[in-house]
Amino acid sequence: MKFLTDEKLTIVGAAGMIGSNMAQTALMMNLSSEICLYDPFEPSLEGVAAEMVQSGFEYAHITYTTDIAEALKGAKYVVSSGGAARKAGMTREDLLKGNAEIAAEFGKAIRANCPDVKHVVVIFNPADITGLITLLYSGLKPSQVTTLAALDSTRLQCALAKHFNVRQYEVRNCRTYGGHGEQMAVFASTATVAGEPLTKLIGSPKLTDEQWAQIKQDVIQGGKRIIELRGRSSFQSPSYLSIEMIRAAMGGQAFGWPAGCYVHTDKFDHVMMAMETEITKDGVFYKEIKGTPEEIAELEQSYGHLCKLRDEVIEMGTIPPINKWNELNPHIK
Amino acid sequence: MKFLTDEKLTIVGAAGMIGSNMAQTALMMNLSSEICLYDPFEPSLEGVAAEMVQSGFEYAHITYTTDIAEALKGAKYVVSSGGAARKAGMTREDLLKGNAEIAAEFGKAIRANCPDVKHVVVIFNPADITGLITLLYSGLKPSQVTTLAALDSTRLQCALAKHFNVRQYEVRNCRTYGGHGEQMAVFASTATVAGEPLTKLIGSPKLTDEQWAQIKQDVIQGGKRIIELRGRSSFQSPSYLSIEMIRAAMGGQAFGWPAGCYVHTDKFDHVMMAMETEITKDGVFYKEIKGTPEEIAELEQSYGHLCKLRDEVIEMGTIPPINKWNELNPHIK
Repeated sequence: MKFLTDEKLTIVGAAGMIGSNMAQTALMMNLSSEICLYDPFEPSLEGVAAEMVQSGFEYAHITYTTDIAEALKGAKYVVSSGGAARKAGMTREDLLKGNAEIAAEFGKAIRANCPDVKHVVVIFNPADITGLITLLYSGLKPSQVTTLAALDSTRLQCALAKHFNVRQYEVRNCRTYGGHGEQMAVFASTATVAGEPLTKLIGSPKLTDEQWAQIKQDVIQGGKRIIELRGRSSFQSPSYLSIEMIRAAMGGQAFGWPAGCYVHTDKFDHVMMAMETEITKDGVFYKEIKGTPEEIAELEQSYGHLCKLRDEVIEMGTIPPINKWNELNPHIK
Repeated sequence: MKFLTDEKLTIVGAAGMIGSNMAQTALMMNLSSEICLYDPFEPSLEGVAAEMVQSGFEYAHITYTTDIAEALKGAKYVVSSGGAARKAGMTREDLLKGNAEIAAEFGKAIRANCPDVKHVVVIFNPADITGLITLLYSGLKPSQVTTLAALDSTRLQCALAKHFNVRQYEVRNCRTYGGHGEQMAVFASTATVAGEPLTKLIGSPKLTDEQWAQIKQDVIQGGKRIIELRGRSSFQSPSYLSIEMIRAAMGGQAFGWPAGCYVHTDKFDHVMMAMETEITKDGVFYKEIKGTPEEIAELEQSYGHLCKLRDEVIEMGTIPPINKWNELNPHIK
């Protein structure tokens, strides 16, 4: 059996719907001969591990543990879906505080147990923030931590394919940048539909301004829509896409969508956000985002929202003020 | 994008945990460029379809429908997990009757809408029975219908690997035949552990008779154990393995485990049960089962249990008496 790598891949949150799907996806892709499943919830974790070996993935060495130190020891690649889900009665702030603290613990655990890790993908919400916190506490380089941001772009692709009644692959280069949810910046100028620039179609009878506004709205509400339909948060698409990201970081097939990463430019700094990126064996590299002046203005607004969210976490005390970040992680300038 | 086939693959029960995993598994394997998802539960089905396209499986044409006729029309391959789950207060007989009737409807729908289907995999419980009923009502040849039976064998492999503390792939050719659950026949004479025949190990200090009896018991209780651990029935392993079966039927990678199929020999007849099989483009073919006299006796007992279960379904009126089967499906002699 040929694996992409023999270096250890650890899946954090493996007992959950996303984590267990990540495990299966990674095994199906033959990513690593050494896969460790971690979750604090013992019986479910054992159940997931049992399902994996009972699927006949007999060549990979699949281990599981409820001990985070053991799970991360020697890990070269880590994907984490290990946040808490929003429960009834919880405010958005409760969730933010809870997951921010989980991310801080996760970052510290990386620093303590696998400082030589090569790449970490963080996907628990709000991923821009949990990824940033993980980066700060882990002491890793900004190029070593990415967050899942692709789903907004694939949702845009799907919505356009549906509207124009074309096959999905005929809609190319759909891009959303910046934050997620209400705060994302949906770009039109990057995309083509059956070879035609989307910007030329918007405002024509083929795609009126109202219809385009509705599509943008649907993309923004995409996650909510899955909850309405399935009665649960999406889990197959985020897990699949995040495993595609770690595959790229292992030197496998290129990842074709935006990824969340730490940015440090004149305009944007001290946040993690969805960028145009390349993920390679050497980590994530972002490129300058190009768009119309309106799109760039939207992106700046999205960035502003992310800064506010980050400042909330600073106020909560989960991360120090920006001017102290360098003390926590010398790779942050 | 290269697919194994361009012929339509339909997944029945696609809104469920097993069916939605089947969809993802089939897409990840690039099995067919034409995948149709069917389920009577509309919103969940749409949610699963949305997750699939949003995963970026952009080259396959993914459709979904709550209309079984539309779902099966033109289908050349079908995998069905579309049974009901056992609910609180339901007896075993209630479940048997309910799923037997679902299987009968499913068989009739195949006959009406896709008589030219090439292969059908049935995995809802009790699969030996629902597969048999599907075969009878569909009018297909016995070589065209298989049921999932591999999980018992993979569980035996896992249990032995754990006991001997060897890697899973070092335990070869684990086999259980006949029925499932309490009725399965667990074979020892086929298997080797790190090159040593299992039969030579049983009764030695390395694997006492008591330990072997316990392993057999654990295999028989394997499904129950997953429910205890995960709080739900196994879904990842059955869906993955059943998609491996349909892949083999499409001419893809060989399937390495026993499959349930209709048997017609001097000793065993008028049942579907786990056999030593080969699944190819031309369908499923079974081979004579070889074992020790004790194992063959166990298999005969397992067969007897299956005959009793089948006779229950005949008594229920869901299928006619054996001597009328040929009228229902001329391929049954």
